[in-house]
Amino acid sequence: MGELLDKINKENDIKNIDENEYRRLAREIREFIINNVTSTGGHLASNLGAVELTMALHLCCDLPKDKIIFDVGHQCYTHKLLTGRKEQFKTLRKFNGISGFPRISESDCDVFDTGHSSNSLSLALGLCNAREIKKEDYKVFAVIGDGALSGGMAFEALNNAARLKSNLVIVINDNQMSISKNVGGMANYLGKIRTNKKYNNLKDSVENAFAHLPGGDQLTDKVRGAKDIIKRVFISGMLFEDMGLTYIGPINGHNVPQMVSAFNSALNMNEPVIVHVCTKKGKGYKPAEKNPRKYHGVAAGSGGTKIETYSDVVGSTLIEMAEEDERIVGITAAMPDGTGLTPFMKKFPDRSFDVGIEEEHAVTFAAGLARGGLRPVVAIYSTFFQRAYDQMISDVCLQKLPVVFCFDRSGIVGADGSTHQGIFDTSFLKSMPGLTIMAPADKFEMKEMLKKAVEIGGPVAIKYPRGEAIVSSRFRDEEIEVGRCQVYGDSAAGGAGSNKKVLIVAVGNMVHRALRVRDELTKSNIDAVVINARFIKPMDEETILSEGKKYRNIVTLEEGVLTGGFGEEVNSLFKDIDG
Amino acid sequence: MGELLDKINKENDIKNIDENEYRRLAREIREFIINNVTSTGGHLASNLGAVELTMALHLCCDLPKDKIIFDVGHQCYTHKLLTGRKEQFKTLRKFNGISGFPRISESDCDVFDTGHSSNSLSLALGLCNAREIKKEDYKVFAVIGDGALSGGMAFEALNNAARLKSNLVIVINDNQMSISKNVGGMANYLGKIRTNKKYNNLKDSVENAFAHLPGGDQLTDKVRGAKDIIKRVFISGMLFEDMGLTYIGPINGHNVPQMVSAFNSALNMNEPVIVHVCTKKGKGYKPAEKNPRKYHGVAAGSGGTKIETYSDVVGSTLIEMAEEDERIVGITAAMPDGTGLTPFMKKFPDRSFDVGIEEEHAVTFAAGLARGGLRPVVAIYSTFFQRAYDQMISDVCLQKLPVVFCFDRSGIVGADGSTHQGIFDTSFLKSMPGLTIMAPADKFEMKEMLKKAVEIGGPVAIKYPRGEAIVSSRFRDEEIEVGRCQVYGDSAAGGAGSNKKVLIVAVGNMVHRALRVRDELTKSNIDAVVINARFIKPMDEETILSEGKKYRNIVTLEEGVLTGGFGEEVNSLFKDIDG
Repeated sequence: MGELLDKINKENDIKNIDENEYRRLAREIREFIINNVTSTGGHLASNLGAVELTMALHLCCDLPKDKIIFDVGHQCYTHKLLTGRKEQFKTLRKFNGISGFPRISESDCDVFDTGHSSNSLSLALGLCNAREIKKEDYKVFAVIGDGALSGGMAFEALNNAARLKSNLVIVINDNQMSISKNVGGMANYLGKIRTNKKYNNLKDSVENAFAHLPGGDQLTDKVRGAKDIIKRVFISGMLFEDMGLTYIGPINGHNVPQMVSAFNSALNMNEPVIVHVCTKKGKGYKPAEKNPRKYHGVAAGSGGTKIETYSDVVGSTLIEMAEEDERIVGITAAMPDGTGLTPFMKKFPDRSFDVGIEEEHAVTFAAGLARGGLRPVVAIYSTFFQRAYDQMISDVCLQKLPVVFCFDRSGIVGADGSTHQGIFDTSFLKSMPGLTIMAPADKFEMKEMLKKAVEIGGPVAIKYPRGEAIVSSRFRDEEIEVGRCQVYGDSAAGGAGSNKKVLIVAVGNMVHRALRVRDELTKSNIDAVVINARFIKPMDEETILSEGKKYRNIVTLEEGVLTGGFGEEVNSLFKDIDG
Repeated sequence: MGELLDKINKENDIKNIDENEYRRLAREIREFIINNVTSTGGHLASNLGAVELTMALHLCCDLPKDKIIFDVGHQCYTHKLLTGRKEQFKTLRKFNGISGFPRISESDCDVFDTGHSSNSLSLALGLCNAREIKKEDYKVFAVIGDGALSGGMAFEALNNAARLKSNLVIVINDNQMSISKNVGGMANYLGKIRTNKKYNNLKDSVENAFAHLPGGDQLTDKVRGAKDIIKRVFISGMLFEDMGLTYIGPINGHNVPQMVSAFNSALNMNEPVIVHVCTKKGKGYKPAEKNPRKYHGVAAGSGGTKIETYSDVVGSTLIEMAEEDERIVGITAAMPDGTGLTPFMKKFPDRSFDVGIEEEHAVTFAAGLARGGLRPVVAIYSTFFQRAYDQMISDVCLQKLPVVFCFDRSGIVGADGSTHQGIFDTSFLKSMPGLTIMAPADKFEMKEMLKKAVEIGGPVAIKYPRGEAIVSSRFRDEEIEVGRCQVYGDSAAGGAGSNKKVLIVAVGNMVHRALRVRDELTKSNIDAVVINARFIKPMDEETILSEGKKYRNIVTLEEGVLTGGFGEEVNSLFKDIDG
């Protein structure tokens, strides 16, 4: 651990560090993060980009009185380091360890439990209005990436921001990326500001003037800081100012004093102020600087053999399908890599759409494509599909449009923690009218279900887990038939009333586990039959009922909350026949 | 019916009307709508505002080949009149009659079944991209109000629009209103354009010049049309152009030739173009012009005695509570009247927030307020809460924040049709972690539950129906106790196995009905006991189980989809004890 970092053991300790040592501290923090994350896994590039920004925020704040809200929150590692959680970093993203996101339960310097994108401005506006009403006095910073800024919810908050009558500092952390390269009008607009000719010329001449002097770097930065603020005057067409918001920027997001000065200017205004800060994702770690997309998240002890995930299977199957069916188009919301769609997008650039972090738009856009005669496949993580709940019902299901929803990372996702679990999907999907819901037990079923989904010609959701696709010959003996499950084991051997017989009805990746359980039970002389549900909706009531009647014990296995789950529905099924 | 309207019996017939007769046709359409809607009920002010706009769109289109997408769709009456549905207007919003919103099943001139706000741009972009991919050729218009434009999803679509390589005409129907007065940065921005000084001076001088000539009105309009388009040059700070979108406007939205000319200009560009059209809500009907908020929707044969709705009860109770508890704040999403919050907002302007049509922001903003020490109450229609599903889980429930969600119009809402039913709420709320869910049986319980909800100090949802609050002395014998139901009837008289005994477990407004059923059953010598569930979650399992065991017949009554509903959970309860 670094010498300077050793001196920082709790919040506000950073204020004891000499200004001349900020660069060294930033270097120590980076070393710490790189060493730690390459062993524990976690978000890397975004955290390396936000080191100086977080330092500057801490220098302007009295924590925990003042509030810093990180959008998404995956860039909070420096914040955690500076608020007394250094020692716990080896437990990062582990059970009972510290979270990769801000968590109120860890520290009173964490204001909200975040994880999903684009909500920081709404949260901050809420806090600021509460502060006004309660006549309290604290600073509020919201830190939002340019990627998250494209989410509609952030715009809703901006739209309401101008009405705030007290201070709020909105820091746009502009690294020109979300997880992948940023897209859309807002990204272009930020780019236009960054590359504004007048500003750049001014900057260049200032830099040239000081370049050869001793300490010239810092001088340059100081002058540049002032110029950045003045520069507002030069740039016309301020989108933010059109919305009634004051704008300061762009500021060099790797220069601490410059940011501190900008933040202090912003804090002096009795209104919401946008400070536009430019950072480099992966800063200070060459591999991550070169390929921030790859180093966005790093798995613990990663490297070694490449596995084939369900996402990969979706991507490759989609290519196969698209080659034969011109109607197939693919949609992702800023996650071409995570959802496995990158190869498809390369092969079919005109038939693939990365809409940015905009799940609502993604789903309704798909509805439009479907109505135009295409067969869109929308691949989004289960937890983020939650953002488009209404769009799935209103724009797709009620209109019976042929859109396929690929629920990636359905079920328990592990290290990302409470905000990223894909455990609600069955519960919220089951009541959507006319929706078919499938879950594959292995790679083979994943492929076949995706094909079947397009064939169905109505709204379909397929849910599949994070990680390696199971490959098993067991699951390929029957074609996928809508509403039909598969039965494994000699069901005739069962007999009602026997305690030696068990029926296990399993969903998706639980089928493999169920079969292993059956193997174990056999050793104890207990006969078990396993049903691979395949379809959560329509459920194969006929088979489950006829099998179920033969057994005293019925067990359902699924990954997700019990309420509204598959098991609850199986339960209802049997209620109808007894009583 | 008017003479000109008589000549329009199907789509494109409007093209046979002489340009000189457009004003008369508009007048006839208005008369038709006013006469019809004051008898059938329906949306009035928005439709009166969009008469000329719709005429202009139809004049530029070849229907059904070309596509017009109306955002929300409540302004589609003129469109329906011009596409052969005149005769069916007396069945407007009735069972088996025509819908108050566009419906594909009614006409192939209706492109989507709409109803919820802010989705038209995403749908349109989908259609346009499908058109490109399929190499087809048709025009696409999206018509969106300035209110709907504040919804985040519309911004997500705008953010993606600049990437479209073919034509799309986005018509902003700017009436400075959503249902109530519009708020926020976008509204201010549109206002700034409208009232731009240079433009207005120019316009005034033109108007003055022609005012005294015969036919001066029309001349003025023509010249103004040209000037409007030129005017783009004068106005700096174009928010839309900053996002890479071409902007034309503002155009007089009650002048058909001027709009036709603007639309044709827009259609000639190989890119998405925004045409900003200014209309007057309620145009041509004095009472609606003066009070568009009141005449937004009109009930069939309305007038007469004023009833007290559940929304009214929420509003008045909130005032009582806020007087005693300074932490109480109220939030609505563009529906202060509909949700009954108007009196509260007048009384506590600093503690009430109308955020505009922004349900996502509303919920997360409430989370921020709660974290800041307040007790926010968010009143939104059940169907629109669907937009904030993820925010309720991630920003409120997972963080155990004390936010009260008032689900207005929960259950069957009738005339607004399929897109507005509040029938999914129980199913999607039940699986939200740590959420308490209540449903009042009458006015008394509504009041007490709202008070109890704030007392609980965690996330709470209360769902209550549209319309008049039931008043009954029957429901006020016991205090509201969390997780406790109420039992009506002599439960001791029951006995397991008897076919003469029925247990009815009812939720919310179904309780009243259940009691009436019990009265009927008594006449037939069947003993019935009614349980008023009060709490959907936590459910009073103990009482329901102990009562349930005494009866052979258990009936559950609730308004909503079966899947994931209350009845399903009661069912599961009994499964656990038998078998």
